[in-house]
Amino acid sequence: MMQSRTHNCNQLRLSDAGQQVQLCGWMENVREVGANFAFVVLRDFYGTTQVVIETEDMMNIVKSVNKESTLCVVGTVRERDSKNSKLPTGDIEIVPSAITILGRCQHNELPFQVNRSREADELTRLKHRYLDLRNPEVKNNIILRCNVVAALRQAMTEQGFLEITTPILTASSPEGARDYLVPARNHPGKFYALPQAPQQFKQLLMTSGFDRYFQIAPCFRDEDARADRSPGEFYQLDMEMAFASQEDVFAVCEEVLPPIFAKFGKYDIASSAPFMRIPFMEAMETYGSDKPDLRIALTVQDATESLASCGFGPFEGNVVKAIVVNEFTQTRKFIDKLMSDVEIQSGNKGYWFRLDENGEVVGGIAKFVSPIKDAVVEALGLKAGDFVGLTAGKKLAAQKTAGVLRQKLGTSVPGLMNAEQYSFCWIVDFPMYELGEESGELEFCHNPFSMPTGGMDSLLAIENGTLDPLTLTADQYDLVCNGVELSSGAVRNHDPEIMIKAFELVRLGEADVKAKFPAMYNAFTYGAPPHAGIAPGVDRMVMLLAGEESIREIIPFPMNKNAQDIMMDAPGTVGQKQLDELHIALVPVEE
Amino acid sequence: MMQSRTHNCNQLRLSDAGQQVQLCGWMENVREVGANFAFVVLRDFYGTTQVVIETEDMMNIVKSVNKESTLCVVGTVRERDSKNSKLPTGDIEIVPSAITILGRCQHNELPFQVNRSREADELTRLKHRYLDLRNPEVKNNIILRCNVVAALRQAMTEQGFLEITTPILTASSPEGARDYLVPARNHPGKFYALPQAPQQFKQLLMTSGFDRYFQIAPCFRDEDARADRSPGEFYQLDMEMAFASQEDVFAVCEEVLPPIFAKFGKYDIASSAPFMRIPFMEAMETYGSDKPDLRIALTVQDATESLASCGFGPFEGNVVKAIVVNEFTQTRKFIDKLMSDVEIQSGNKGYWFRLDENGEVVGGIAKFVSPIKDAVVEALGLKAGDFVGLTAGKKLAAQKTAGVLRQKLGTSVPGLMNAEQYSFCWIVDFPMYELGEESGELEFCHNPFSMPTGGMDSLLAIENGTLDPLTLTADQYDLVCNGVELSSGAVRNHDPEIMIKAFELVRLGEADVKAKFPAMYNAFTYGAPPHAGIAPGVDRMVMLLAGEESIREIIPFPMNKNAQDIMMDAPGTVGQKQLDELHIALVPVEE
Repeated sequence: MMQSRTHNCNQLRLSDAGQQVQLCGWMENVREVGANFAFVVLRDFYGTTQVVIETEDMMNIVKSVNKESTLCVVGTVRERDSKNSKLPTGDIEIVPSAITILGRCQHNELPFQVNRSREADELTRLKHRYLDLRNPEVKNNIILRCNVVAALRQAMTEQGFLEITTPILTASSPEGARDYLVPARNHPGKFYALPQAPQQFKQLLMTSGFDRYFQIAPCFRDEDARADRSPGEFYQLDMEMAFASQEDVFAVCEEVLPPIFAKFGKYDIASSAPFMRIPFMEAMETYGSDKPDLRIALTVQDATESLASCGFGPFEGNVVKAIVVNEFTQTRKFIDKLMSDVEIQSGNKGYWFRLDENGEVVGGIAKFVSPIKDAVVEALGLKAGDFVGLTAGKKLAAQKTAGVLRQKLGTSVPGLMNAEQYSFCWIVDFPMYELGEESGELEFCHNPFSMPTGGMDSLLAIENGTLDPLTLTADQYDLVCNGVELSSGAVRNHDPEIMIKAFELVRLGEADVKAKFPAMYNAFTYGAPPHAGIAPGVDRMVMLLAGEESIREIIPFPMNKNAQDIMMDAPGTVGQKQLDELHIALVPVEE
Repeated sequence: MMQSRTHNCNQLRLSDAGQQVQLCGWMENVREVGANFAFVVLRDFYGTTQVVIETEDMMNIVKSVNKESTLCVVGTVRERDSKNSKLPTGDIEIVPSAITILGRCQHNELPFQVNRSREADELTRLKHRYLDLRNPEVKNNIILRCNVVAALRQAMTEQGFLEITTPILTASSPEGARDYLVPARNHPGKFYALPQAPQQFKQLLMTSGFDRYFQIAPCFRDEDARADRSPGEFYQLDMEMAFASQEDVFAVCEEVLPPIFAKFGKYDIASSAPFMRIPFMEAMETYGSDKPDLRIALTVQDATESLASCGFGPFEGNVVKAIVVNEFTQTRKFIDKLMSDVEIQSGNKGYWFRLDENGEVVGGIAKFVSPIKDAVVEALGLKAGDFVGLTAGKKLAAQKTAGVLRQKLGTSVPGLMNAEQYSFCWIVDFPMYELGEESGELEFCHNPFSMPTGGMDSLLAIENGTLDPLTLTADQYDLVCNGVELSSGAVRNHDPEIMIKAFELVRLGEADVKAKFPAMYNAFTYGAPPHAGIAPGVDRMVMLLAGEESIREIIPFPMNKNAQDIMMDAPGTVGQKQLDELHIALVPVEE
């Protein structure tokens, strides 16, 4: 007998009737139905079992404790008179011969009913997280997370990746988000930093001769909370491969992720390999977003040529984007709400017109479109019954507003979205350089340490004027699922000479390269392999799988939005002696 | 073709001769044997392959780069004339048709030769860890560690344990070692602490209804380095089980650890279940240690009765311990060295005498023993040829010195130790209370939050005078392997009333209990299950398995003894702006 029981609370079946058993668990509920007659629900991690109280002795024990006390029940399994087919143990009950109280709940009133804890306010739940987690609905999200992480580990191991743990007390990095700092007792005035990601270490591992690295990596960024980002710590499925190309990284993700999404997710369908590859520029043009939700069967058309000069003021001299919805039957009220939502989310207005059942242009900006109806119908390929949503502005604004409009249409007009699936894509071919909005000069567009496509040859071509730097892409990519960006990744620039050249094109040099990542730069001068990787966010993936909107639902002990653990009372005050040892002093905050 | 190659550098065999292949790796060595004739060793993560240079073109490429540059080699597999049977790829070589330089090593001179990096001084190795790790001997320890951790995870999962990640930014704890602190930007004057262990969280998980928890848990203690302890962070195989007894925890460890030790360790034999259970008092008495190395076939005898009054000054009025070694043939020089080593390590002198081949008492303190020879021979069961090592002092000092003597004898006298195995035992029945050396009053002996054996009944018996508190044990245990303590564990005291009673017996009360672990105490008042656990140190286990004496050999990126990462330059200075944001100031250190 392990853990003080013969069976857990989800184990006994009709075939066990007559057996002597011993169960342990929490007294979830007591339902008194007569004198010395009551039903007790005993709950453990695995499930619940009914215990029937039929004697005064047993009744006295049960009545002497509060709900949520822990009990050990010895008794006989008996077939139930009225069975509960919804419960795995619903065919049986336990007739106890002995009940031992293992741990008393001292509180007659609980802050919330365990099984309805999700209805309680969040602060109360977080303060009493040990009660909240007893709710199977809450607990199951945590179990899901644990199982997903275990499955990710197993799949990566099967792919020949080695999980290597990198340091948590490390050096402050000069860019990115804000670091968490840790004063170093033996080095007055100096600080460790918690890693924002193991980026440098994984690249150092590649330079150290490791071939396929991964880690369920804790990452720390001192940023304010968002719905999908916990303050403080979060986890990435961090991976890196030596001598690898973009396609090598894609192949691993396409092998590893879909089966796990289909197995553990709320939907059991996930994209199979290869995921759609969409160049960044095309994604912006076709979906109005660099993280398109491909479950939505709508694309964005350019309507500048056909509509910019229609006389409608906001279109004048602007880029115009159109989204056509066939067989549109929604009400005017629906459209007004849609346009209002688009404006709220994007900050830009949306416009529209319709073709009625006779093919006449009606509604919205109809009076500007009607005069050029035939041209517009031809340009956009319209049919009677079509709705045309429109956005306008400078190119990027028109695209992005169209992206919001597409999303709103897709999720609110029935039939436009096959929602019950995980739809992955890769966004590729990000531009390496852009013209700075303020400077008007060439600047890095995304990550300066990604490999420019074509390597040194491309950079030399820019230098001698045979390649337009704004057309150069980087071997950098985003993994997107259902409109959520799971990660950016890249083929890294592993060559100090190419780094320096890439920096020179934006009027920087070797000193700037070195200043960013001195250890990595130095390591690369000792012979580095080409390498590439990615780091999908574990928290975001689990949120997608669980179908939860708040990240706090998928973390065992989350902090609140103010970065506090109110159960543990963290952060807290510390003694003067501790501060003295660390050679730091508190600076009073001015009122 | 993945990762730019058709095969890795450990893959090609004689049967592949004639194939066109592409390999990538580091140019480990070039051996020129003639004009345009050289052998290149190409090394990757998996192994090495020989590339034979036979043309001027190829020679020019190879000569244009430094060793440790990365190359891509395209060529044909050819059977070697002189095969190397020590190398998996030793039957073949590659005749290249193209060699591409992927990453230049810019340094003509390396700080050390990669394959002999272990001979370099430690600071140089740590500064260039990316070169050090290219040495297969160094790399293999890291791979071992990764494989051991993966195997531990898999075994725990197979045992029904769920790996749950607990917070790293949490609350400072009021006792134990020194915490690492993290200033909280949004909460001026307050600090997070990095967890010394997830002790409170795992107990909260039990109180939250989880049943079998484990975690490869990062732990942080701001303590100075030791040979077997890295400054900063280390890892534990942390586990906890609800409704569990000591035997439940033992059963899991006895199932999980021996197969992993036998599979991954330098010895392929490990204790099978059940491990020997040795009460603490008996361990001190029989082995002179609470972490006995059971591979040594020697035990300690009490010789107080037979020898304390022999007239030898140091024995007078003291406890005397004896260790008998049969058929002892070591020299006088050996014995002197032994006694000197014992004194250096224990701070106490060891003594000795022998029975020569005729059974006469000779050497050491022979002149005090001879007069009472017959009694001593009978009491200690001596035979001709026996060596008797002796220690004396107060009981604990005599025991501990005997423990050191036993260890020294076992490891230096041939035939006393079956070293090639992992020998586990449990130390059990630790005393709950002791008399304080200074106060003379009752005090906690080890962990005040372990369950006293017998629970509340035992404490009440002490209170009403029917039980001697010094005889009460706690349900606490140590796991020991080959003389190394891998972990302490305990059945936890989950009952606030028993906690308070246990504290009252040492003149403390509820306020003291609460002050230690407020969140946990509060949680326990809402109904907690009995629970028990343990947390074997991952680093120590891997050291045992690798047979390494320095913890830095089994950590990918270790800090040096001064808690610095000299490769990453951690800890480092930070800007005034960062300090301002955190509301802290540096305190200048007085010279």
